Amino acid sequence: MAPPTRIGLAGLAVMGQNLALNIAEKGFPISVYNRTTSKVNETVERAKQEGDLPVYGFHDPESFVQSIQKPRVIIMLVKAGAPVDQTIKTLSVYMEKGDCIIDGGNEWYENTERREKETFGLGLLYLGMGVSGGEEGARNGPSLMPGGSFEAYKYIEDILLKVAAQVPDSGPCVTYIGKGGSGNFVKMVHNGIEYGDMQLIAEAYDVLKSVGKLSNEELRSVFSEWNKGELLSFLIEITADIFGIKDDRGEGYLVDKVLDKTGMKGTGKWTVQQAAELSVAAPTIAASLDSRFLSGLKEERVEAAKVFKSGGFGDILTDQTMDKAKLIDDVRQALYASKICSYAQGMNLIRAKSMEKGWDLKLGELARIWKGGCIIRAIFLDRIKKAYDRNPNLANLLVDPEFAKEIIDRQSAWRRVVCLAINSGISTPGMSSSLAYFDTYRRERLPANLVQSQRDYFGAHTYERVDMEGSFHTEWFKIAKL
Amino acid sequence: MAPPTRIGLAGLAVMGQNLALNIAEKGFPISVYNRTTSKVNETVERAKQEGDLPVYGFHDPESFVQSIQKPRVIIMLVKAGAPVDQTIKTLSVYMEKGDCIIDGGNEWYENTERREKETFGLGLLYLGMGVSGGEEGARNGPSLMPGGSFEAYKYIEDILLKVAAQVPDSGPCVTYIGKGGSGNFVKMVHNGIEYGDMQLIAEAYDVLKSVGKLSNEELRSVFSEWNKGELLSFLIEITADIFGIKDDRGEGYLVDKVLDKTGMKGTGKWTVQQAAELSVAAPTIAASLDSRFLSGLKEERVEAAKVFKSGGFGDILTDQTMDKAKLIDDVRQALYASKICSYAQGMNLIRAKSMEKGWDLKLGELARIWKGGCIIRAIFLDRIKKAYDRNPNLANLLVDPEFAKEIIDRQSAWRRVVCLAINSGISTPGMSSSLAYFDTYRRERLPANLVQSQRDYFGAHTYERVDMEGSFHTEWFKIAKL
Repeated sequence: MAPPTRIGLAGLAVMGQNLALNIAEKGFPISVYNRTTSKVNETVERAKQEGDLPVYGFHDPESFVQSIQKPRVIIMLVKAGAPVDQTIKTLSVYMEKGDCIIDGGNEWYENTERREKETFGLGLLYLGMGVSGGEEGARNGPSLMPGGSFEAYKYIEDILLKVAAQVPDSGPCVTYIGKGGSGNFVKMVHNGIEYGDMQLIAEAYDVLKSVGKLSNEELRSVFSEWNKGELLSFLIEITADIFGIKDDRGEGYLVDKVLDKTGMKGTGKWTVQQAAELSVAAPTIAASLDSRFLSGLKEERVEAAKVFKSGGFGDILTDQTMDKAKLIDDVRQALYASKICSYAQGMNLIRAKSMEKGWDLKLGELARIWKGGCIIRAIFLDRIKKAYDRNPNLANLLVDPEFAKEIIDRQSAWRRVVCLAINSGISTPGMSSSLAYFDTYRRERLPANLVQSQRDYFGAHTYERVDMEGSFHTEWFKIAKL
Repeated sequence: MAPPTRIGLAGLAVMGQNLALNIAEKGFPISVYNRTTSKVNETVERAKQEGDLPVYGFHDPESFVQSIQKPRVIIMLVKAGAPVDQTIKTLSVYMEKGDCIIDGGNEWYENTERREKETFGLGLLYLGMGVSGGEEGARNGPSLMPGGSFEAYKYIEDILLKVAAQVPDSGPCVTYIGKGGSGNFVKMVHNGIEYGDMQLIAEAYDVLKSVGKLSNEELRSVFSEWNKGELLSFLIEITADIFGIKDDRGEGYLVDKVLDKTGMKGTGKWTVQQAAELSVAAPTIAASLDSRFLSGLKEERVEAAKVFKSGGFGDILTDQTMDKAKLIDDVRQALYASKICSYAQGMNLIRAKSMEKGWDLKLGELARIWKGGCIIRAIFLDRIKKAYDRNPNLANLLVDPEFAKEIIDRQSAWRRVVCLAINSGISTPGMSSSLAYFDTYRRERLPANLVQSQRDYFGAHTYERVDMEGSFHTEWFKIAKL
């Protein structure tokens, strides 16, 4: 019988296995459990192969729980929703007052808040912890977003600080996020931002390929080059990698054989719904979600393409001689400026929720812990951190002096790219909605006066005036039809 | 003591008063009730003044209910949410098996489905009925969207057919929508479409005023002219009216004094959230919601405008000589093409919900009952009705042969207007997201292959291929880093 382990992990799909191995590798003996016991053996076997790591497998929940030193900490990595409730039910029977449960899945924050209350009734502490970085991050250092019981967080802080990704000059990619479901909420928005980043990169690819006629090798070299500058990031890096990979089932490059249908798992949808709920404009993230929806309608798109081709409207790609180098540079600038807008939306969404819930979230700290480990890790996040360091009450990233300057420098290129796409019949919903967001936000006077006049005309919703205080109503109809 | 009335109405704010008078005017004696009794007297007084209409006021719920002939029908027009539950509680005490309650408010459809079940337990029938047309419509003929108990609908069909707006050649603007909360759901999407229409009109105004430098008088004449053609609609008509109205509190035109902040009441938000829930892209409607959100940040916008002006980036409106007539014609075409996209989104949202709930909604019928009475009434709806008559299974309005042709004819102008706006620093989020929707939907091959490759790279989410069946996973990382 092994001595009590420091921590337990239940749910041994790839993410769970990798996180368990990571924890063990950092010197914390860990108990692991899975309902399907073959996964337990698999994990223990991997632990042996990957350096005799201190991973102890259990085939029943009772001995699993009892193998952990008190107060016990168990991380669950199971599918969000009912499986989480089921796992809590199974394990909590054997747990004792002061023990702690951590949900490491992409859970809806309200479920975490419900469970925190329920387990509190059992004397247990609860954390909802966003884990980003995919399989590779889980194994070698993810970005961790734990929210809920501060007491529980402090008890395992030493583990999390070592398990998380380590970034030179800014430390481990973990911090206590805040109370309740804040860890899950922040992870949800992280994923929404990730949708935005991926969509913007896809649009850059589309313009360079469809309009600029770049080959995969050229694309690889462009993205590799971009990855040395302001766009340096995990997603740009893997994009460069992708363009270099040959199809092992046929001729040519694999990316060209991949079907243009994008899957999704719910966090992007939640982000868009929460933005609407909190009255925060998040058009770039919404555009990326819509693009996934429309990508799924492959058969309809094939039919629609036929309809418009037979109607005399085929590709309207211009044959104009293109200065490739100029196009590439313009697209880089458009991508970067759009990215600022997307992050501004995500950060403002987090702040709105923080204010609603009294979470007191630190936006700069979030940017810091996203600098390593997670899918959106990027040098760019350092600028965001600095913007909030300069002014923690910044209304919008767009008006930070550094970001404002960067946008001003890039806006001509940004407008050129979006118009080039429009005139080529290529949609860039992410870039164009980012630009519209910018041009709306920086506008002192919008045409919303007309909309409010209409609302007062047909619904007596009243309006305010630019030149005097108060709420006004006009009998527009009566005056107009005099 | 008056003889039993045919129907009752509870909730006598302006909408309720007007609908009661409308019903009475069509020859149906009506009992009215309101918790604040002064409203009862006010309504009865108006009934006298507007032609001795058979409106009978009651100050207590019991005598109100008992004054109505059996089986009783009572329409509620109270604030959505808790007030509806309260009103049902108050009235149902005195109601009998077979009586019917109709909620005429903008209620969340799930609340209606819950209440339908609850009142069913009391032996009562229930309808959730969308009522559109504002105050004026309620008084003179609204568009009615009743959903729920078919039995209840049949019992008051004679009233609804007379009370609803009457449109030559297509009949009264009412039909039985479907089961459950379908009436509320359809009304909700109607409102989302209304948001889209208003936003698109505001953008047309913005481009014409800010780029084309049109005066209010010119704008009035342009919109009046447009109201004679394909754009003929209530919203275009009142827009023309608005530009003609002088400020009675100062110099100039009233529209210029109205603050550029747009209010909202929730149905637009629900529409956007439902679109995300049902995986339906609705970017035009979402853009109109976001524009309302951003309009509300007036103080932030004023500050942002300063930041970008002091950064050397003021108005970038071009001074290029503008062919005004050409611009006006282009904007008309852009508005019309964008409108097609917006309605395509709304209709597809309704269809998706109908399929999920088994409501079997008839999209063409919905277009028909929106032709009169409601805020989005327009000659355009006739084209939509015809499109669904031609093909009830039409995948998207965009691919209907007539609409496709209209878009092909207008797409050059559409692209010109959006690019002109972009190059002038004017945001047209509704028009540009409509265009992106079109260009995405008609595209056989999207760059979604890259996004799916990325997802498989970092998350092993697998992908499909264009050239063979199955689900594939590649070890992108291992291959790339060989």
